[in-house]
Amino acid sequence: MSHHLKAEHISDQMHACIEHCSDCHDVCVETLVHCLKLGGEHAAPEHLKTLLDGAQACDTSRDFMLRGSELHTMYCRGCSHACDRCAESCEKLAGDDEVMRNCADSCRRCAGSCRQMAGH
Amino acid sequence: MSHHLKAEHISDQMHACIEHCSDCHDVCVETLVHCLKLGGEHAAPEHLKTLLDGAQACDTSRDFMLRGSELHTMYCRGCSHACDRCAESCEKLAGDDEVMRNCADSCRRCAGSCRQMAGH
Amino acid sequence: MSHHLKAEHISDQMHACIEHCSDCHDVCVETLVHCLKLGGEHAAPEHLKTLLDGAQACDTSRDFMLRGSELHTMYCRGCSHACDRCAESCEKLAGDDEVMRNCADSCRRCAGSCRQMAGH
Amino acid sequence: MSHHLKAEHISDQMHACIEHCSDCHDVCVETLVHCLKLGGEHAAPEHLKTLLDGAQACDTSRDFMLRGSELHTMYCRGCSHACDRCAESCEKLAGDDEVMRNCADSCRRCAGSCRQMAGH
Repeated sequence: MSHHLKAEHISDQMHACIEHCSDCHDVCVETLVHCLKLGGEHAAPEHLKTLLDGAQACDTSRDFMLRGSELHTMYCRGCSHACDRCAESCEKLAGDDEVMRNCADSCRRCAGSCRQMAGH
Repeated sequence: MSHHLKAEHISDQMHACIEHCSDCHDVCVETLVHCLKLGGEHAAPEHLKTLLDGAQACDTSRDFMLRGSELHTMYCRGCSHACDRCAESCEKLAGDDEVMRNCADSCRRCAGSCRQMAGH
Repeated sequence: MSHHLKAEHISDQMHACIEHCSDCHDVCVETLVHCLKLGGEHAAPEHLKTLLDGAQACDTSRDFMLRGSELHTMYCRGCSHACDRCAESCEKLAGDDEVMRNCADSCRRCAGSCRQMAGH
Repeated sequence: MSHHLKAEHISDQMHACIEHCSDCHDVCVETLVHCLKLGGEHAAPEHLKTLLDGAQACDTSRDFMLRGSELHTMYCRGCSHACDRCAESCEKLAGDDEVMRNCADSCRRCAGSCRQMAGH
């Protein structure tokens, strides 16, 4: 989003949250592929589902913000929960794996940003 | 979804809700095109945004249910709100336009089904 | 899609293809969860990626048809390839597993329908 | 995508294309809201549909690249067509409206990047 004009209906705080959601979506999908390759506990159903939930939650809250929909607060709240769960799941598996720790960081950042947008 | 086996992690009630979401998504997109063609108050930004919100809310709650994610309750709650708003907006414009009334009906059905899934 | 009016811009053949795409999307996501639970070769990265590709290809071609976009032919062509690959991958793993065989069937049906829409 | 590690399966060129797709998606949705507010020829069905097509084409090619799917070439080709059409439609309406010109620029950049990924 770096080189584009920000639309009038999008505040600076919302703009930052949109970027965090975009970033977190991409990291979740890349980390999913990483975990599938590693296999073992990295490919546990519950873990992979948190990554899929996180990726979709991010795209959805991003779009409700981009449209300037009043319901963005509800979808940002959902996204903060999905990303906190994903961060927790990644942290448990991370050890010294930079991909996992990076995903946990992206998820925490997105969760925090979405929580602010949701009005907490 | 009529000809396929239902996965074990999906209850009958959830299965019905998934069908309502799929149906409502499709109706919202078709109605969006219908409203764009009609123009005038049918193409008012707030109305079209409720249709876009409804369509995306339906796809998202559908997917959280299909994955058997615990967070589906939160996304079904979001969807029930998005679809109630969309139904209301369509009802105001419907008159004797069958497309609009059909969209309002699909949205009300989906909102009711999602509200049940969300635990109300 | 059974109880709703079909919009004027959607032909009978397109309507059938939209239903096949919707059905196939849902089956791919349910089968993904099934495969994650089974683990082993069912959780091989390439197999799971064909399921994720199939699910997204279906949603995308469905939406281009619902909007009546001219580009639907291109997205139906993409979907036919994604679903053929997914069917092949499921067939290899199916044995007497009804979930896998059902997914292969849904994918073949969707691929055939999309190929027709794409105009060969 | 600025602060995250790039996964091994994603080349520098692909990484750049993913960023162009993400950017272009966001710009298309923001421009859609802008056009709905302006009304008139900015709210013509064909124009708005190119914006919706562009936004979805971008998300889809982005995800096929993020998953490292072989089919990303096909979806990048689709995206290059969708974004070229959207750019053309925005250019016709742009005049000295910075939002429209910015959207045309994002679409052209994304189309070019996707065309390279598609192998032309």
